[in-house]
Amino acid sequence: MTIKQGYADGAAYIDGRYMPVGQAAIPVLDAGYRRSDVTYDVVGVRDGNFFRLDDHIRRFRNSMNSLRMEPAETDGEIHAVLNRLVALAGLQNAYVSMESLRGAPPPGMSRHPANCRSYLCCIAIPWLSVATEEMFERGMHLMIPKVRRIPPDSVDPTVKNFHWGDLTQSLFEARDAGADYAVLLDADGNVTEGPGFNVMCIIDGKVISPLRGALEGVTRASVFELCDEMGIPTEIRDIPADEFRQADEIFTCTTAGGIMPVSRIDGRMMNNDAPGPISTRLHDRFWEKRAEGWHATPVDYSVI
Amino acid sequence: MTIKQGYADGAAYIDGRYMPVGQAAIPVLDAGYRRSDVTYDVVGVRDGNFFRLDDHIRRFRNSMNSLRMEPAETDGEIHAVLNRLVALAGLQNAYVSMESLRGAPPPGMSRHPANCRSYLCCIAIPWLSVATEEMFERGMHLMIPKVRRIPPDSVDPTVKNFHWGDLTQSLFEARDAGADYAVLLDADGNVTEGPGFNVMCIIDGKVISPLRGALEGVTRASVFELCDEMGIPTEIRDIPADEFRQADEIFTCTTAGGIMPVSRIDGRMMNNDAPGPISTRLHDRFWEKRAEGWHATPVDYSVI
Repeated sequence: MTIKQGYADGAAYIDGRYMPVGQAAIPVLDAGYRRSDVTYDVVGVRDGNFFRLDDHIRRFRNSMNSLRMEPAETDGEIHAVLNRLVALAGLQNAYVSMESLRGAPPPGMSRHPANCRSYLCCIAIPWLSVATEEMFERGMHLMIPKVRRIPPDSVDPTVKNFHWGDLTQSLFEARDAGADYAVLLDADGNVTEGPGFNVMCIIDGKVISPLRGALEGVTRASVFELCDEMGIPTEIRDIPADEFRQADEIFTCTTAGGIMPVSRIDGRMMNNDAPGPISTRLHDRFWEKRAEGWHATPVDYSVI
Repeated sequence: MTIKQGYADGAAYIDGRYMPVGQAAIPVLDAGYRRSDVTYDVVGVRDGNFFRLDDHIRRFRNSMNSLRMEPAETDGEIHAVLNRLVALAGLQNAYVSMESLRGAPPPGMSRHPANCRSYLCCIAIPWLSVATEEMFERGMHLMIPKVRRIPPDSVDPTVKNFHWGDLTQSLFEARDAGADYAVLLDADGNVTEGPGFNVMCIIDGKVISPLRGALEGVTRASVFELCDEMGIPTEIRDIPADEFRQADEIFTCTTAGGIMPVSRIDGRMMNNDAPGPISTRLHDRFWEKRAEGWHATPVDYSVI
């Protein structure tokens, strides 16, 4: 493995050009910054393999279509860009983000988004995890904050976006409460998701995930596959806050961390203040299967 | 008036440094882009005078406090930065934006926003107006879209922000419907605001503005001052969509455009498809008073 000189912190691609990630920046007049008019997706690389790369690119394409963005690159070209970024940075374990920005209108045209030319920004940086090693050992500590998740009829959460105002506020509320992270409720008081992760709870042996108000997570879909294989029943439905607080187990899941067991919710300890047994089995099986090449696409490091 | 070389398109200030606006960019790993973790305010310059500069800086400071951001600059220094930007670009009429970004954590620290060092990005560019000359003449055409405004318990609209997903979608809905702009409803079906402007309606001679779900606009406050002076009664309360659609007159107001009369709402024509009489009186008086130096702070062009 070699790292191309200057790319040790990661690599970026913006609208046709490759550069070290530290040089990648968004013009201040671009709607991608000024209006947060951008959709994105994140795929992980572990031990030199992308996980469910095609699923992420497919979801990214659906998100772009939903926002009426059509950057120049085909899905195959996006695949090639992401591969090249990981290769440039020489990363065996990487956090790889693909982003489509609305851009700016041509000179003299109205600033209506329909007049803008959308383009891609993609980055590959060293692997990031939502949970620290300590959190994996003791279980995450979650809380339910006052701030509510932005509702789907305002901003569609299945179109992954940078509208993180509610999630950022939840990070401050969690910190003030001595918790690691928050899980936000919707206007009806049902559980949705946290900053960068889906949530699942386990009640009477059944794995339950929220019906709405959350990203349709690729790792969440992988959890459902695992449950099928392991004979664990699953359900997708509304989960009221009180039911969630009384669950037998809770875990979170995301590309940037996999399956992350929870040991406390709003101060209540579960499983003697440790990761629960079913969550732990799912976590272990997830990484076993990953090591076996489950949904893997090897990075081609020879392209640079 | 001179324009400093290279600054014809506008000037920018980022975290202590001045540059032509075309060179100003936000690093892709900055939370200001990646999490839209930024608050901003916009002040206008007309004929060499800022309008209500201190009010805008005061609101900007409140917004930063609300998000727990504390960039290095004092209010007085922000005033000086904005003045210098307008002078560098030699602008008599300018759109001047002050923005505070969360930034990035120092190397090795967790990505929690509390660990980030916030900083300012400010720009001065040639005057932009929400309404075109044509819209001022014939009146704006508004419509009420399907997408709902992000609610205050998710993202506080009084802390001006770039979470424009709902507003951007409303621009597409408006275009599809043949309208100029949209006015969004909240979850209860009451009128809130449009992309970049407050709305007011006039019923039985009274000027009415929404109680919640909207920015506490500086231009809106100026409209209330005008109404007081002109003996026009005002009211701030919930405005259901149907009542808004049946109003005698409607106008919008914003820093980037002043008072903008509306002639159509959801296809219904008001005032024989033209700007209404009270809206027009307010519009005219607004610019008369501006020309007389109302709330004006002269730009000091000698600083460069």
